[in-house]
Formats: sequence, C-alpha cells, structure tokens
Amino acid sequence: MSKSFDDLLWQVNACEKKKLAVAVAQDKAVLEAVKAAKERNIADSILVGDADKIREIAASLSMNPDDYEIIDVKDITEASLTAVKLVHDGKADMYMKGLLDTKTFLKSVLDKEVGLRTGKPLSHVCVFEIPGIDRLLFLSDVAFMPYPTLEDKKCIIEYTVEIAKACGVECPKVAPLAAVEVVNPKMPVTVEAAELTRMNEEGEITGCIVDGPLSLDIALYKEAAEEKGALNRKVAGDADILVFPDIHAGNLVYKSIVHMVNCQNGNILTGTKAPVILTSRSDDCETKVNSIALAAVVAEELNKNK
Amino acid sequence: MSKSFDDLLWQVNACEKKKLAVAVAQDKAVLEAVKAAKERNIADSILVGDADKIREIAASLSMNPDDYEIIDVKDITEASLTAVKLVHDGKADMYMKGLLDTKTFLKSVLDKEVGLRTGKPLSHVCVFEIPGIDRLLFLSDVAFMPYPTLEDKKCIIEYTVEIAKACGVECPKVAPLAAVEVVNPKMPVTVEAAELTRMNEEGEITGCIVDGPLSLDIALYKEAAEEKGALNRKVAGDADILVFPDIHAGNLVYKSIVHMVNCQNGNILTGTKAPVILTSRSDDCETKVNSIALAAVVAEELNKNK
Repeated sequence: MSKSFDDLLWQVNACEKKKLAVAVAQDKAVLEAVKAAKERNIADSILVGDADKIREIAASLSMNPDDYEIIDVKDITEASLTAVKLVHDGKADMYMKGLLDTKTFLKSVLDKEVGLRTGKPLSHVCVFEIPGIDRLLFLSDVAFMPYPTLEDKKCIIEYTVEIAKACGVECPKVAPLAAVEVVNPKMPVTVEAAELTRMNEEGEITGCIVDGPLSLDIALYKEAAEEKGALNRKVAGDADILVFPDIHAGNLVYKSIVHMVNCQNGNILTGTKAPVILTSRSDDCETKVNSIALAAVVAEELNKNK
Repeated sequence: MSKSFDDLLWQVNACEKKKLAVAVAQDKAVLEAVKAAKERNIADSILVGDADKIREIAASLSMNPDDYEIIDVKDITEASLTAVKLVHDGKADMYMKGLLDTKTFLKSVLDKEVGLRTGKPLSHVCVFEIPGIDRLLFLSDVAFMPYPTLEDKKCIIEYTVEIAKACGVECPKVAPLAAVEVVNPKMPVTVEAAELTRMNEEGEITGCIVDGPLSLDIALYKEAAEEKGALNRKVAGDADILVFPDIHAGNLVYKSIVHMVNCQNGNILTGTKAPVILTSRSDDCETKVNSIALAAVVAEELNKNK
C-alpha cells in the first residue's frame, strides 16, 4: 500500500513501464515533467505537436531526443485527437494535456470515435500527502463538477475508490464531509451524506466503507474523533477518501492545503476509459510528475482487469 | 494595526482594562483562560455559577480568589441570565460561555430583557494568524449560519469589517470566495459574490473594499494573482476578510487550517450588542485567550462609539 508519493514511485517502478501520450507537447513545464518521468522510470512519452518547437524546447532542457517518440501535428485540435487516439488504440496507456486550452483538450477526451468517454460523467481526484497524516488522502471533487447530485456523488465515490485501490488501499474508508457530523434536515448536504452511507450499507456502493456526514476533524484525526465521542463511527480519524459537498467547499479546502501546508499532491481526471492528466499551469513540476505516477498505477490496475 | 495575536495583546494592554462576565464558570478549561487573561492584563472576570465549585477549581489552578468577583448562582439558566445581564447593564464589557450547552447560552444572549440582541442575525468571525501571511485573516461564517442569504452575507461583511477595524485594519479588503474568480450564471455563489461587490461599489456596503468572486489563491497570494493575470483586481493577494459560500465550505476550510497548519486563532460571535465569546470545548487555552483579547479590542471600539 502506497502511503506517500515516494511509495507510489516504488510501486510504479515495480510495474511494466507505461507510455504517456502528450497532446500539443510544445510546453516547457510539461516537457520538464515528461523528462523527470523518463528519468525516474515512471513513463516513456509520445509527444504529439509541433515537432520543431518540441525539439527546440527539449534541447533547452537537455533532453535526449532519441528518448522520445515525436509525432508532428501542427494543428492543435488535430494534435489532441492524434494523441488521444494513441491511448484509445492501446498504443499509449495515459493521456496528458500540453499547450492547449482545457475545453479543446476535454473535447478530445470525449470524442466519440477516438476519445476515452465511458458515458459516465467526468470528475477529478486530487491526492495529497500531508505531514501528520500517515497515508495518502484522496479528495474529490475539488476541481471539476460544480454541484454534484446524489447520483454524481455515487460516481465520485466509485471513481475515487478505484484510484485509492490502484494505490494499494484495499478497502478505502470514505467520508462524505459536511460542517457537522449529524444529519440535519435543514442541511441537504448532511441528508445526502447519510444517503450515500445507506447505499454503501445496502450494497449499492461497494468495495469501500462509507460513513457520513462527517466533519473534517473527525474524518481525519483520531484525537478529534475521541474528543467528540465519535470513535464508534465506522470512519473515525482514518478516512482515506474525502467527498466534498460541492466544488466551492472542495476547491477552497484544496487551495488552502496547497498554499498553507508543506504538502505534495497529484491529480487525475476520472470517468474516462484510461487515465487522463489535466494539470493546471500553476502546478509545479513535482505535482505533474506525481500525477503521471498516479496515472501509471491506475493504468496498471486497468491492464490487470482487462 | 494588529498583524498578529502578539500585536493584538499589545493593543489590548494599551486600552482600559475590560471586564468579562462568564456564565456557569465552573469549568477548568474556561477558568484556565480566565486566569491567563488576568495574568496577561487582558481582562478581569466576574465568574457567575456554583461558587463552591468555582473556588475549588480556581484553587486547583492556583488562582488567587481575591482576583475575581464570584457570584453564586447554581441554576444554569439563571446563572447565564445573571451573567449576560452584567454586560447588558454595562457592569461588564463582554460575555463568555462556561459549562453550559450552546442552546441555553444563546438563549441568554438573545433574551429580550437582559440579553444582547440587536434584532439582526447572529453570525461568527474566526481570526487566524497563519505563517506566510503577513496580517491577521478574518473568516466568516465558518461556524454559525448554515446557508446565508445575500442579505445575511451583507450582514456578515458588515460584522467582520467591524471586527477587522477594531483590530486596526483601516479599510479591510473583502473577498467573497468561490471555486472560481469569474461570474458563472450556473454557480449562484459567484453571482452573489458579484452582487456583494456591486453593493459595495454603490455604497450599500461601506468602510471596506469588496471584490468577488475570488478563488482562495488569488485572494491571499500575490504570486497566484500575478500568475493568473488577476493583479488588476481590487483584491489581489491582499484580502483581510474571507467570506464563505456556506457553512460547509467555511467549516471545512477552518478545520483544515486548524489541524494542518501551525497557526493561531481566536473567535467571536457577531450580531450582538457586546462581544460574546462562544469557544468550543476542543479549543485550546491559547485560542480561548486570543478570543478574549479579540473581544476586548471590539469592546474598546464599542465604548469609543458610545
């Protein structure tokens, strides 16, 4: 079980080497991550985009051009469709965004012919390694679905459980979060959290233990759970997965942690046939590399189940 | 301007000594804070409750019994009404919760005859000192109002601006937060944030600069604002006040910071005629003392305006 990103790198190195297809790869920050992924034995890459520009940036980063397959497609939409098709056709294991806007990138992900759509909604999982917490934490959705319905939250849990399992967490503990740990009919979020718990108890959500509503302190910290008399909860200080009420709560917590805590993180899109990495321009190289490593273990799990 | 809780203590020490009325004071954690407040010259206290028990606990904490006025009222409801009346009558400056449930305590706060009601809704401000941020941050509402309406959010801003001003922030910068920094009609929170901004521009909310919606990183960090091309915003990396979409977002961020960041905080109830301290049992002594100091500067400001 990977309890840190270091563990995750070990886990990746024990797998067969994965291949990453990058859409519109002529981007310095993305190529830095691609280079680091190669050097750390996480993944090889196929770089789709403007070959001249890619070679120029690669040279400036002292990347060995022979280490990478480069496919010259100058048009941005076409480059993204070419790259995603590599994953669709099984020639690459995971798909990553380069120098193109998110809308065009997602269009390629959802393309009916060469894309990675499953028919289920897209969502997003953020994985954190936080000092004082002895395991990886999986947060969703902090970036993608604005106001998930109950049905969406069921998907969010299923997606995130899959990612956590790929990281070796056998039976993830899931905390649908709220401001309070008791159901209050005046707070719809708490009612939904209780409903997700019931769905888990009755076998509609499987492979995990769901217990909500939970406040963040009870979900994550044993002492807080003890102090508040909540040690009898199924999830009490040992949550692996945090499910947020909506994107505002999720994103504000995500940004608080990223900016205020000395942490590491990685991100992955969910609801797709193969792992998709949609990092933001503000993510540092470490975060991008962590995201590639995360995608690699998810790809390994998918290959196993094929 | 107080940029830290240390500054705030200096500010308090420069004021006339304030008096704190404690309801049902026979509580060790509360008396520890009362003792520390006395020793640090923040406030004297009038302890209302079971006098024998108060004296017993005080002795165990080596408190000098002559330092405190003790009023013997054994019945809990009566004790809270006696204590709040001291503030109502101007015999004390601020009111603090002891060993009683929040519901009974709030009943005394809202009592029509001897309470501190203003007719406006109650809310709550949490003040944080966070490493890497060169000023105090004022968060609201993270604990009290579940789903504030637009009108409630106007009150929340007015209350919080008052607290920030009492701490010496002349014209606080206010960020109504969301997951994104642009208005999106599909996200009501962003529409409300823009509406609060308009109300400020048109003079319906005064004494501060409001600019929303803002993401947390743009609100708090100059580099993030720069990276995202948001330096032209009225609030860009220099927010003093963070207004949350709802209690879930606020509380989850609050608990993330309290548990994951090496920070200090203090809290105060708002919407009352005089400062009310409603600390939680899980707050440590430092937090309680910070809250008393915060209440003292707010009381000073109220006295000035009388």
